[in-house]
Amino acid sequence: MLNARQTFDRTQHLYTNDAFAELVRNAIRFFNGTPVHTLPFIEMFLGTGVYALYYTRNDGVYSKYGELNRLAYNSPIYIGKAVPEGSRQSRITSASQESRKLCNRLREHQRNLEIVSNLELRDFACRFMIFEDNSTDMIGTIEAALIQWHRPLWNTTLDGFGNHDPGRGRYQQAKSDWDVIHAGRAWAERCLGISSSEQQILERIANYFEVLEGQS
Amino acid sequence: MLNARQTFDRTQHLYTNDAFAELVRNAIRFFNGTPVHTLPFIEMFLGTGVYALYYTRNDGVYSKYGELNRLAYNSPIYIGKAVPEGSRQSRITSASQESRKLCNRLREHQRNLEIVSNLELRDFACRFMIFEDNSTDMIGTIEAALIQWHRPLWNTTLDGFGNHDPGRGRYQQAKSDWDVIHAGRAWAERCLGISSSEQQILERIANYFEVLEGQS
Repeated sequence: MLNARQTFDRTQHLYTNDAFAELVRNAIRFFNGTPVHTLPFIEMFLGTGVYALYYTRNDGVYSKYGELNRLAYNSPIYIGKAVPEGSRQSRITSASQESRKLCNRLREHQRNLEIVSNLELRDFACRFMIFEDNSTDMIGTIEAALIQWHRPLWNTTLDGFGNHDPGRGRYQQAKSDWDVIHAGRAWAERCLGISSSEQQILERIANYFEVLEGQS
Repeated sequence: MLNARQTFDRTQHLYTNDAFAELVRNAIRFFNGTPVHTLPFIEMFLGTGVYALYYTRNDGVYSKYGELNRLAYNSPIYIGKAVPEGSRQSRITSASQESRKLCNRLREHQRNLEIVSNLELRDFACRFMIFEDNSTDMIGTIEAALIQWHRPLWNTTLDGFGNHDPGRGRYQQAKSDWDVIHAGRAWAERCLGISSSEQQILERIANYFEVLEGQS
């Protein structure tokens, strides 16, 4: 066996590099300059990457977003990512299998927005950024940075929009907060755990917008 | 509502930047140069980051790793990360709460290695890299790049080492492959789903090492 170090010096483990922060800012600037598309957005395209959804209607529980996005798309309600298949596992997948993930994810979100009873697809818009080859390693970082910056409601306060059917044997869990106030996904109705009440969730949303208002 | 773009031009969404790949290589070079510590490693330190565990014993089902790591710590059995608390949620946590995550994660892994009946803590070593401030955004990327490069057995072929107690209402799921061949975690014994057999898992491990041997 190799002779491993026994004394500990934290500085030997500490990585510092300012170039990274600058690179993240560069990518975020690019993201903020990408075209915004109203929904439904049905183009097929290849690639993985990061996307944002914007609520644009000046009405209802999310009306504040409609107001904030009146002059520019600066306030996403949700930010997500689509990473290449197999990036964390040893399974080898072909390039073609990997490649429709971003556009498929946007479609899946659109189906969910259509399915639920109290949202309209036309009240949303989207923006997205494609990463290829080695740059796909950046996807998680850029998504996290955007979420941290914007704290979108559906990423932070109202959980569950991006969830999938938990599947057989897991319906003991509670319906997500998102599903409580946006009824319509069949699998969500099968979840038997104790959810928050609609009242509690709406209060949390109101509180979120109050804090947001205080910041802007 | 703002006038959003209706026509789609993929090039407007495509981000390219070679600096990122170089930056990742730089961080990985740093990681590969950090000191290696034999276990138990009980130092307390502050920070979040990326770590690797190495198996060093030239015996048993993982003996190939003992052989591979004889001259240098080049073949981790597991790679993981500890990211700052609240990086994806709006919950604000103090810097002090965030700060012991990496060292706590290493401790948790060591407890698991001690608990199970057929592994010995002293047969393992660890290496880790601390990221601070803005650089913590890089953690996910570097972890993913290291996993993709090394394809460590416990990240790819043998699932479950990093799992936590699924908790009440979720014991319908199967015990992980890792828990099948490393009995001892109390919560794993509560999982009632149908697991792979020990025989199947050992075959998969043997196959993993055969592929690894073919590559080296």
